Amino acid sequence: MSEPKAPDASRRSERSRRAIFDAALALVSEAGYAKTTVEGIAARAGVGKQTIYRWWPSKAAVLLDAFLDLAARAAEEAGAAPGETELPDTGDLAADLRLVLRATVDEFNDPRYDAPTRALAAEGSTDPELGARLTAALLEPQLDAFARRIEAAREAGQVDPGTDARLATELLVGPLHHRWLHRTGPLTHAYADALVAQALRGLTPRP
Amino acid sequence: MSEPKAPDASRRSERSRRAIFDAALALVSEAGYAKTTVEGIAARAGVGKQTIYRWWPSKAAVLLDAFLDLAARAAEEAGAAPGETELPDTGDLAADLRLVLRATVDEFNDPRYDAPTRALAAEGSTDPELGARLTAALLEPQLDAFARRIEAAREAGQVDPGTDARLATELLVGPLHHRWLHRTGPLTHAYADALVAQALRGLTPRP
Repeated sequence: MSEPKAPDASRRSERSRRAIFDAALALVSEAGYAKTTVEGIAARAGVGKQTIYRWWPSKAAVLLDAFLDLAARAAEEAGAAPGETELPDTGDLAADLRLVLRATVDEFNDPRYDAPTRALAAEGSTDPELGARLTAALLEPQLDAFARRIEAAREAGQVDPGTDARLATELLVGPLHHRWLHRTGPLTHAYADALVAQALRGLTPRP
Repeated sequence: MSEPKAPDASRRSERSRRAIFDAALALVSEAGYAKTTVEGIAARAGVGKQTIYRWWPSKAAVLLDAFLDLAARAAEEAGAAPGETELPDTGDLAADLRLVLRATVDEFNDPRYDAPTRALAAEGSTDPELGARLTAALLEPQLDAFARRIEAAREAGQVDPGTDARLATELLVGPLHHRWLHRTGPLTHAYADALVAQALRGLTPRP
């Protein structure tokens, strides 16, 4: 992923960067990935096309960074420290997972997040290169954080020693994403809680 | 969903219908949904555009029927009777679920199925109307069949009486779809088996 160069006029740069991200997310939400262009993003952001190309090599790169920035802001709104990727660990696995999945539900129900997430998920589904970058930059760190939290619970004797933390993660994340993507049911806190309870029921230690 | 009218020259019609479906699936796989047109499908299938419009009102309608036909053929190849939507019921829930999820893995690993499924999933993700039609025509009947099989096991005392069959279904189907869509891991029979074992561990009756 490309990073903007550290400029001298850093405040003006940050303003441009924010305007470019907002424009990119708005356009991809409204028109879809295919119809979003660097020219369109520049026009909407009120910057020159060359400003975008100075910082990012392609439309995909801008959108990926815009999306990572959006996800980071959503995580901060949900209470995470900036740059934080760890799940909370209060010692109560069920409570920690409910908190995180409820926050995911809130994000999916937020149009600012839902529309660009759908646009990029759609594009990543059919474009293997973009899909791989999205998965590596955004999804894998999330899955790893879940797995680490489950491993901590396993070490604390709260889940079965034979637990595959990655598989357990997928049982928590997969159903929620599936319901969201295919709109097969309401996304509520009650659903998040029921999902956590059902998944954890399969993880508890057995005598 | 529109059905082709029963024509007199039914064999020729069936040949055209098959050619149209094949062309539609090939184009959507190669060029994506947005760039697939009724004109393009007609040219590739060697039929007139009016032949397509006689049977289907829109590109979305042709593609949806082509995709349902593909899914039905995949199910038949996997051993289902034509039109069959029920899951097998041998009395062994784990074995029946392994059989079905292994067949799903095989489909996802088959480029004939993978490419158009990705194209339509992508389009359904961002187009709520097409998404709702795909979900209603294809996904909901599958989810209902899983839920009925789990309910039968619940009635037979093989899963906990408090089991929510729909939620249990999502724990089986969601992780597999998520791993396929985002390419976050290998899709193998061993994975299908592990998923079934983990999900069922949360469903077994407790004393």
